Amino acid sequence: MPRATQKKPLSLTNCSIALTVEMIGDRWTLLLLRELFRGTCRFGEFVEMLGAARNLVAQRLKKLEDNGLVERFPLEESPGRDGYRLTDMGESSFPILVSLMQWGDEWLAPAAGPPVIMQERSSGKALGVAVLPQSRLSKSVPSSKAELIAGPGARKGTRALIASIESRRS
Amino acid sequence: MPRATQKKPLSLTNCSIALTVEMIGDRWTLLLLRELFRGTCRFGEFVEMLGAARNLVAQRLKKLEDNGLVERFPLEESPGRDGYRLTDMGESSFPILVSLMQWGDEWLAPAAGPPVIMQERSSGKALGVAVLPQSRLSKSVPSSKAELIAGPGARKGTRALIASIESRRS
Repeated sequence: MPRATQKKPLSLTNCSIALTVEMIGDRWTLLLLRELFRGTCRFGEFVEMLGAARNLVAQRLKKLEDNGLVERFPLEESPGRDGYRLTDMGESSFPILVSLMQWGDEWLAPAAGPPVIMQERSSGKALGVAVLPQSRLSKSVPSSKAELIAGPGARKGTRALIASIESRRS
Repeated sequence: MPRATQKKPLSLTNCSIALTVEMIGDRWTLLLLRELFRGTCRFGEFVEMLGAARNLVAQRLKKLEDNGLVERFPLEESPGRDGYRLTDMGESSFPILVSLMQWGDEWLAPAAGPPVIMQERSSGKALGVAVLPQSRLSKSVPSSKAELIAGPGARKGTRALIASIESRRS
């Protein structure tokens, strides 16, 4: 960042997009949020799911924790070890993750269709994201009411992964 | 990326979130998309608004162009020079940008309130993003029908910037 010692322009400081992007607009951080929404909580699982180096995962998790999106909790099955989960601040990034998924489904999915479909657990209706007047936003579906099912573009390993995510979340 | 030579896990390839994040989940790319939605089109303006090095901006713009989110067009006022604008693929990332803004407004804005408010041009109603069943998504507002106004947390320079964006866009 060549201008790190200069004063940052207002467009990077007095802007909610820029502040958000500086905090979580990073490939690995966004993938960690994906995992956290899926109920992944153990450090080793994050490393495995991201196929990333341990120090990189540790650094990104620490930043999420320091910024208040993630909190640690004692893992019942592993005394002395902590897991990671979303706080309310982290949970409220759900529309960001759904909008990333929706765009990928539209432009980058396999010819067969999306690998994963997110649906409302109670109704089985597919979920997506829309830009709407505030008065119509109060019915936004929280992640706890969404479930994943295999889409037409799901490969075998993805089907198994979705099954394991849903058995853990329900 | 320590595993670059290894086979990528399915969670990075058979997943619309991961593919999207790999393409645009980068601080500078997301800020470039913000600028493109605001109607910024000249290379020098991107450099100025991001406060970033020219080679960094050039590389990210080229990636957006190569991936089909951005196209060049001849600048009428500068013969021989091209500007940059969003394609339909780029335009459809609008909910991603709005969701980043909304989250920042909720968690990172000044005490006075959001610096910028996005509203529906025709109605003056503030816009936001929600996760909803697909059947209720068809009324998603496109960026062309949104306008920016200064919010309670806008600093002086931001007010001037918003005025200049809106005079350019309308």
